[in-house]
Amino acid sequence: MTDLAALKPLIDIVGPANALTEPADTAPYLREWRDLYQGRTPAVLRPGSTQEVAAILREANRLGLRIVPQGGNTGLVGGQIPDETATEIVLSLARLNKVRTVDAEGYTMTVEAGCVLEKIHEAAEAADRLFPLTLGSQGSCQIGGNLSTNAGGTAVLAYGNSRDLVLGLEVVLPTGEIWNGLRSLRKDNTGYDLKQLFIGAEGTLGVITAAVLKLFPRPRAQEVAFAGLNDPESALALFTRARAKAGPMLTGFELMPRVGIEFCLSHLHGARDPLTAAHPWYVLIELSSGTEGAGLRELMEEILGDAFEAGLVEDAALAESGAQAAAFWHLRHGMSEVQREEGGSIKHDVSVPVASVPAFLKQAIAAVEAMVPGCRPVPFGHMGDGNIHFNVSQPVGADKAAYLARWDEMNELVHGIVHEFNGSVSAEHGIGRLKRHLLTEVKSDIELDMMRRIKTAFDPNGVLNPGRVV
Amino acid sequence: MTDLAALKPLIDIVGPANALTEPADTAPYLREWRDLYQGRTPAVLRPGSTQEVAAILREANRLGLRIVPQGGNTGLVGGQIPDETATEIVLSLARLNKVRTVDAEGYTMTVEAGCVLEKIHEAAEAADRLFPLTLGSQGSCQIGGNLSTNAGGTAVLAYGNSRDLVLGLEVVLPTGEIWNGLRSLRKDNTGYDLKQLFIGAEGTLGVITAAVLKLFPRPRAQEVAFAGLNDPESALALFTRARAKAGPMLTGFELMPRVGIEFCLSHLHGARDPLTAAHPWYVLIELSSGTEGAGLRELMEEILGDAFEAGLVEDAALAESGAQAAAFWHLRHGMSEVQREEGGSIKHDVSVPVASVPAFLKQAIAAVEAMVPGCRPVPFGHMGDGNIHFNVSQPVGADKAAYLARWDEMNELVHGIVHEFNGSVSAEHGIGRLKRHLLTEVKSDIELDMMRRIKTAFDPNGVLNPGRVV
Repeated sequence: MTDLAALKPLIDIVGPANALTEPADTAPYLREWRDLYQGRTPAVLRPGSTQEVAAILREANRLGLRIVPQGGNTGLVGGQIPDETATEIVLSLARLNKVRTVDAEGYTMTVEAGCVLEKIHEAAEAADRLFPLTLGSQGSCQIGGNLSTNAGGTAVLAYGNSRDLVLGLEVVLPTGEIWNGLRSLRKDNTGYDLKQLFIGAEGTLGVITAAVLKLFPRPRAQEVAFAGLNDPESALALFTRARAKAGPMLTGFELMPRVGIEFCLSHLHGARDPLTAAHPWYVLIELSSGTEGAGLRELMEEILGDAFEAGLVEDAALAESGAQAAAFWHLRHGMSEVQREEGGSIKHDVSVPVASVPAFLKQAIAAVEAMVPGCRPVPFGHMGDGNIHFNVSQPVGADKAAYLARWDEMNELVHGIVHEFNGSVSAEHGIGRLKRHLLTEVKSDIELDMMRRIKTAFDPNGVLNPGRVV
Repeated sequence: MTDLAALKPLIDIVGPANALTEPADTAPYLREWRDLYQGRTPAVLRPGSTQEVAAILREANRLGLRIVPQGGNTGLVGGQIPDETATEIVLSLARLNKVRTVDAEGYTMTVEAGCVLEKIHEAAEAADRLFPLTLGSQGSCQIGGNLSTNAGGTAVLAYGNSRDLVLGLEVVLPTGEIWNGLRSLRKDNTGYDLKQLFIGAEGTLGVITAAVLKLFPRPRAQEVAFAGLNDPESALALFTRARAKAGPMLTGFELMPRVGIEFCLSHLHGARDPLTAAHPWYVLIELSSGTEGAGLRELMEEILGDAFEAGLVEDAALAESGAQAAAFWHLRHGMSEVQREEGGSIKHDVSVPVASVPAFLKQAIAAVEAMVPGCRPVPFGHMGDGNIHFNVSQPVGADKAAYLARWDEMNELVHGIVHEFNGSVSAEHGIGRLKRHLLTEVKSDIELDMMRRIKTAFDPNGVLNPGRVV
């Protein structure tokens, strides 16, 4: 427990109104939505400028304090929650929430770290542009957190991960220096590309305070289809054909199992089955184009027609309206939350090379069913990126706590299979506190050593996000 | 001058047949094609495996020697040429030249550093895939050098820089450890993205020995147009409209001035003017699609038709065949070499935010014309990336040497204007030895300090590419 008097220099920086110390005020910053972490803190600081962030970090170095930056508190691996010692200070970026500029002609915008993703979408749209990062939590997550965790989402196939959407950054280093790297250049080979270090570092190497983002033309036409298939092999073959035909117009390719659709039909408001019969697997396909009348409908029909002939697709529905397209996506976006209604769910956020997805699924499903007979695997996600949310619901009627007690055991089993396919045990959620112990298993000594060398070079006093990632 | 006997441990690693020490053998490795640098070396080592590269670096650390990695020796900033002291040893990656695997379904390929870019294109095509990196030097440059310098080229608009085309790397660190980061994953958030450090570091942080590259669907349809315009403002407005209409199907947008076309007509074999009258400026527009019959012709006609009506375009020609499209590109690709026939040329490889290109050109052209009356600016390049090769040919009949003696003075003038527009003084060629003195002018102290911290953390003995970049 840190004495409040010791924090006075930090509280003075932001002013008492922006230094929360009462339990009722700090509570929302100390708990994340999956209830995996509940932290304690002597204070939540809410700086109003980059200079205040820098001053806080300088003082923290001087006083030997530790700082945990926090955006919209939607992270899934505990990186943004202080630990239980009540010594880690939360640094909330929420007040740095201005869209500084939108350059429609240059296809860029400059935003502060605390901007909520949805607000960024709206600002881009107002300039007739698209910022493509799309996440379930976009109504509350903040762009600083998105970049610090290199967030993925459903638009990665066409537009890349968060890393690919950034041209420049402003960062406060752990030692309190401000780096102004807010460049708007598409090409710049003048030395090391330092912004790459901070993207995906989960706040361990610096605090991102502002960013220059890439914008894209807004799609003028879109087609969405929902297809029933027999197996993931067919989904892979369909993906390969669709990508070859549609190229960059293929903007979504999501895989779902029948059990996930059944969960949606039981628990998701407004859900209905797009197809008349049941199929073991489903894919949602989205095509987009910047041009109206780009022949997307014909292209989708051609893709599906060929797939029928090749025996890859059993049945398919094409969305006849925006509302129907939204209804298809509603099933996909609802797939995570409905699992809560079916008891305990043991989760894995993994990726394998795209071509290995079917073989991985076969092996992993068999393994968890052997480990917990009656368990219900609900693997779904971004097939086109090789990223599967391999979630496993408890057997019907089983004891939830007893099932969840096998979390680590099942993780180990599934991650072992991921490893055989040269995959990743954290495709898009990051490491944080939840998966830190896994790093020593999946990374070589030299890779861990390089990470530590960088951490030491940037944060010699271990002030920023200690115990996360490295 | 390093004593050859002192090099025996290194020569033993590769064997005498792969350790070149005779001046006649080493000469091709010591001079680059623009004749800006002529180096000396005690030996050129040509290792045949990653393990041999690692052994060389371990010995170099032990013996206090310095190593300069070299790919296809096509770099433009002297980074790959040893200095004049005859102490720096050249490490040629040319023998690591295997395409290890091509995964058509997963859209990836794994290649060794010494693979010539054109060979990679061919291997991708053989699997009905595209590797999009496109450079004038593709017949001799090697992929290891392309990645180490984050090469750009003419396909950046649609596919990004080299950095964006990499999924994984194998790297030998300056201290001789091998990092196997050859992952084929589209999403992987397990710790720092270390590959980013080595891409664009110009061989100062490690030697890239192999890479997993992203592949793309091969375009099935393409349309190329050549348009005459009055000014760069019109070109920018046309680019903005074309991008909004074509989205990711806009794969090329290159700007050229009339004087450049005239140089081509005088000196470039087979060049002819695509348009009947002369225009002050030209753009080459390329549209591509993975689908045949995607309506590209109609799209191009619509883009140009709208631009005519808006008064942006004076005249335009659409390529009626692949040969005609190649003839349009021939003018663009010839623009650099024809400048040699017109006497001295002072060069700048700069970028500014895309929307600032017209204002930058206006100011920079006026400035160099005021500095050297009669000089002939030939600014051309990747308008869609904001990347202009701002080359300035000498006045007709002027003394070449006297003109080139003003290189630094003109660079300073142009770079000053680039700086006003928050641009980059090396958009795609890198820093190497040529531009190292510029870094202190264009980078903040904290940015230089971060670069040095990283260099020290990875190369404590300063073995790899000393005096380049940092």
